[in-house]
Amino acid sequence: MKFFSDNAAGVHPRVWDAMRAADQPDAAYDGDRLSARLDEAFSALFGTECAALWVATGTAANCLALAALAQPHGGIVCHREAHIEVDEGGAPGFFTHGAKLLLAEGEGAKLTPETIRATIDPIRRDVHQVQPHAISITQATEYGRVYTPGEVAAIGALARKRTLGLHMDGARFANAVAHLGCTPAAVTVNAGVDVLTFGCVKNGGMNAEALVFFDPALADVVRYRRKRAGHLQSKGRYLAAQVLAMIEDGLWLENARAANAAAATIGEACGERLLHPVEANEVFAVLSPAEQAALHAQGFEFYDWPAPEGAPGAARLVTAWNSDPAHVAALARAIAAL
Amino acid sequence: MKFFSDNAAGVHPRVWDAMRAADQPDAAYDGDRLSARLDEAFSALFGTECAALWVATGTAANCLALAALAQPHGGIVCHREAHIEVDEGGAPGFFTHGAKLLLAEGEGAKLTPETIRATIDPIRRDVHQVQPHAISITQATEYGRVYTPGEVAAIGALARKRTLGLHMDGARFANAVAHLGCTPAAVTVNAGVDVLTFGCVKNGGMNAEALVFFDPALADVVRYRRKRAGHLQSKGRYLAAQVLAMIEDGLWLENARAANAAAATIGEACGERLLHPVEANEVFAVLSPAEQAALHAQGFEFYDWPAPEGAPGAARLVTAWNSDPAHVAALARAIAAL
Amino acid sequence: MKFFSDNAAGVHPRVWDAMRAADQPDAAYDGDRLSARLDEAFSALFGTECAALWVATGTAANCLALAALAQPHGGIVCHREAHIEVDEGGAPGFFTHGAKLLLAEGEGAKLTPETIRATIDPIRRDVHQVQPHAISITQATEYGRVYTPGEVAAIGALARKRTLGLHMDGARFANAVAHLGCTPAAVTVNAGVDVLTFGCVKNGGMNAEALVFFDPALADVVRYRRKRAGHLQSKGRYLAAQVLAMIEDGLWLENARAANAAAATIGEACGERLLHPVEANEVFAVLSPAEQAALHAQGFEFYDWPAPEGAPGAARLVTAWNSDPAHVAALARAIAAL
Amino acid sequence: MKFFSDNAAGVHPRVWDAMRAADQPDAAYDGDRLSARLDEAFSALFGTECAALWVATGTAANCLALAALAQPHGGIVCHREAHIEVDEGGAPGFFTHGAKLLLAEGEGAKLTPETIRATIDPIRRDVHQVQPHAISITQATEYGRVYTPGEVAAIGALARKRTLGLHMDGARFANAVAHLGCTPAAVTVNAGVDVLTFGCVKNGGMNAEALVFFDPALADVVRYRRKRAGHLQSKGRYLAAQVLAMIEDGLWLENARAANAAAATIGEACGERLLHPVEANEVFAVLSPAEQAALHAQGFEFYDWPAPEGAPGAARLVTAWNSDPAHVAALARAIAAL
Repeated sequence: MKFFSDNAAGVHPRVWDAMRAADQPDAAYDGDRLSARLDEAFSALFGTECAALWVATGTAANCLALAALAQPHGGIVCHREAHIEVDEGGAPGFFTHGAKLLLAEGEGAKLTPETIRATIDPIRRDVHQVQPHAISITQATEYGRVYTPGEVAAIGALARKRTLGLHMDGARFANAVAHLGCTPAAVTVNAGVDVLTFGCVKNGGMNAEALVFFDPALADVVRYRRKRAGHLQSKGRYLAAQVLAMIEDGLWLENARAANAAAATIGEACGERLLHPVEANEVFAVLSPAEQAALHAQGFEFYDWPAPEGAPGAARLVTAWNSDPAHVAALARAIAAL
Repeated sequence: MKFFSDNAAGVHPRVWDAMRAADQPDAAYDGDRLSARLDEAFSALFGTECAALWVATGTAANCLALAALAQPHGGIVCHREAHIEVDEGGAPGFFTHGAKLLLAEGEGAKLTPETIRATIDPIRRDVHQVQPHAISITQATEYGRVYTPGEVAAIGALARKRTLGLHMDGARFANAVAHLGCTPAAVTVNAGVDVLTFGCVKNGGMNAEALVFFDPALADVVRYRRKRAGHLQSKGRYLAAQVLAMIEDGLWLENARAANAAAATIGEACGERLLHPVEANEVFAVLSPAEQAALHAQGFEFYDWPAPEGAPGAARLVTAWNSDPAHVAALARAIAAL
Repeated sequence: MKFFSDNAAGVHPRVWDAMRAADQPDAAYDGDRLSARLDEAFSALFGTECAALWVATGTAANCLALAALAQPHGGIVCHREAHIEVDEGGAPGFFTHGAKLLLAEGEGAKLTPETIRATIDPIRRDVHQVQPHAISITQATEYGRVYTPGEVAAIGALARKRTLGLHMDGARFANAVAHLGCTPAAVTVNAGVDVLTFGCVKNGGMNAEALVFFDPALADVVRYRRKRAGHLQSKGRYLAAQVLAMIEDGLWLENARAANAAAATIGEACGERLLHPVEANEVFAVLSPAEQAALHAQGFEFYDWPAPEGAPGAARLVTAWNSDPAHVAALARAIAAL
Repeated sequence: MKFFSDNAAGVHPRVWDAMRAADQPDAAYDGDRLSARLDEAFSALFGTECAALWVATGTAANCLALAALAQPHGGIVCHREAHIEVDEGGAPGFFTHGAKLLLAEGEGAKLTPETIRATIDPIRRDVHQVQPHAISITQATEYGRVYTPGEVAAIGALARKRTLGLHMDGARFANAVAHLGCTPAAVTVNAGVDVLTFGCVKNGGMNAEALVFFDPALADVVRYRRKRAGHLQSKGRYLAAQVLAMIEDGLWLENARAANAAAATIGEACGERLLHPVEANEVFAVLSPAEQAALHAQGFEFYDWPAPEGAPGAARLVTAWNSDPAHVAALARAIAAL
């Protein structure tokens, strides 16, 4: 009974079907009929003209986006615990040719206009200090917290005022939208986001994310940079198929709702153990080493997590689109019984 | 009836099967059981200890290899018409942080010790000129020509003498080995190759190539660089499955032989039209615009090609593992009838 | 009697005087009163609003210019024998983050619209091939040849038409203008040049070149990049002093005329030995090894040079602002006497 | 009466003399007789075989050193307030091709083995996190604090144990050694430092620092990278002359002692206002805005500085080799009288 992460969960049957359906002769790279449908499909989803590219990984999608928004001599504001800072092996430095991540604070790994300003306002406007070019936020965050449309819009307004690009790392974008119940546009393009990493892999895909540009001109540059980064696959139709399967019939939200519901069940059982409100598909809870051992002994697998001061220990429990309801219920019961 | 390229051909059923079989819970990234088998599988194939990494594209595989062999201030000798020089969108410059491709000549896009020396010997040994750090050869070449073990060994000997790394771009390595009838080791590790891009995508895979290091220590660095380039997929088992399906039961050679045989049939029909001997799965032939039009009218699709001086026109005809024998025979007849 | 190069010649007395005069308290970096005068001084010299930055070397100046005109995924057209291709240790790859030099032909190392088109027209407009972003020409060229205003304007027109930036490497710009007798604007801003490396070091300076932007907005970005490249010196006033000493009283042309005159004298003596017309301060002449030895024996020092086909040998003779007229006359006599 | 910084102070007369003496014909780049003496001169100074290169700026020297010690995918531990992190315009990202600065704490901007371990020990040994490759410390620190030989040795021992390179940014190395009264070797090579940026510019030079490698093999690579970064000046003899003038007759220590003495005088007057012990040539003191204004009114110029919590304000007062003793005394009196 695995609650390690959503990033290795299997592939959804409808995604498999779409990939099999793509297994017929077509043009190479992104010249095929499926890739050609991406712009339109995302434009429909967001109710505005978009350009969308498939990319195999979230790391590549995020970093291509950052490189499109920040010049090599610039900086990108992100949370101190953002994935791009902590867990992408220095990929932002590679793709941006050495642009600097400017770290900001915020509860639950959420930035706010205030914390962003606390990072960028002290920067002297001279050539000795790296100037901010962009902001990157994660939706849902690394702690499973969700930005509301209003919160994103406040950051978007700051970005506009300071002429900073705004990127959203949406590795778990579906979970966030499922939680919010709003349109996908409301927390992105309508709130000032320029580029969105639209995650599919954690949500039932195999190896295709979508990079969605609300300014299509940006995408034209990124097409060159995607190739240059070795990310233009020759049989792109299998990636386009995955992405389209996710968005064209609402599978992305279905899957996210399932994962969120599972997390909610577990979160409820955690009660006061919770370190963060459960808004997406991740649960962070105080669990002492003994309690963790007890759960492990019952067959539940998960990562421990650095405990906050004063707590005896903590763990991260992640659900996925295919979390077995029986396993979830069992885990909830086991935690409640601790 | 498409003879455009092998790079968009469908996925082989046994590769599909392997991918489906991989669709069960396992660890993320390359921590899964399939990825763990790669080193051993390639060590068996080459009869020597290797380290092997899956990578989604040939461009990424080639460029990760080059970056492992050449420092940013160094140079890499390649043929003037090598894929890395001509068709990878500047990816080598990206992955190597600006190392220089040092162009050399050679018939059929094949380098020789002589042509390599003609490029590197005039380079002054001072800091004003970029010094060679590595050599990259393509097997089979961009013109479908195949290096014999002896030819590779001669280049390998030069590389050792000058302390240059030797990379082989084997996007069509299977076709070359199928043609040679030798062991895969004979044209690689035994001939001085340090790193091989072992192509699968053009040969029945979906989106997995293997990067094979005959010095496993090199692979340890590249693991970091693969992640940094956004090429470490979280569901790596689907890539490992493809690669293993290709090599563990000889599928790579089966498929290559089929493609080579198809090309041979067409090549024979071309007779004196041939611009290069047909050794792998590509045919380059003199075909005037009118002749090309005639073939197009019969339903044959292919790319035209820059004609050599004096020729009225030329075309490139590429076969794949799944080229329909009926189509191949029809094309051969049509060309013979011109 | 050294005719190796102009790049190690001593510092002109008026430059020394200007540096000594700068030896008083002032602000750091480029906040001093001398650096503040650069924009105005160059605007006066070119009769149009310019922004000018000092940089210690021609390599840095050239490469900062190229990075301002070409994105990392783009290409820069230059002559196959351009200094940036041949003799700058891969610096363009470093400063541009791996942009590609696209090599073109041209007699005397001079590009023409035709040779540029021969390089860029075959480039497919797709992401697999590096697209041109800029052109770089050298004035005077690596063979001491000078572009006329009309020749530059023809290239400038092509650049505009194709939306390519145009950079001029003017390491020997003064020699070119002295030869042409035109205004400096006529062969630069009026002819479509966007950025000029205005050379001082070879012309009597110590270690300051000027980077002149005819679009001042470009300079604002380069100020950041100059710092980032470690080229913002804290005592910048000593560099500004050198540059101002060169241009504010016409010293740059005085020095260049002296060097050109010396080269002309030697060139005349060479007569039919000349490989290129002598237009600036470099003489390339057919000289057999025995003849070179004879000259060396008389105390003349210079580099030999790759001989054109059929010639028994060749040499490069370079004069400088401070070439001793007696030495020059002696060399001319010695050559005439061969 | 300027106490802004030492980085714009004039050039010492003996440095001028050395530069003038270098104004005679010699070979270009670093082929001249003065540059050829650098290795020997530094080997004598440090009592061990060194290789030394001149470089125009501290930023370039630091970053060339870092790039020699850390691969692009690695990290470099430095203090949160280190110059390379805060004030070099992102130059480390440029020279290292995007390596990451890993920030550590420490009083007075001094690292300790404990604070370094607090930064690197939590880094998981997997490809998702940037692994440390090197450590960089500043001597004297950005707060004018000096590492003792024992303190450096403790860091050096940690570096060896973890196979990390150790760089010392010695922009004010002379001030530190003057304070310590030890040999220069005792706080560098004998304590485990691999590369030292030996500062001259702040200490009476014009525009030459020295990069000193205690492992000469490292220098051979950096020679190529110096050229590639546009930092190989063609009239290098004027830089070599500056460096030799500083070290061959003890001028570096003479000048540093003068600056240190001036700072000590001011520091003494500050008494309890001091934020850091005065060990080199910088004084950080609590001064309220009104007090600062009073000093400004008396003609003293200096930068204000972020005040520690609870303090009404603070200022930084920097002395230089040529600080006028009368000005220093006047400032000390004025502060004492506040």
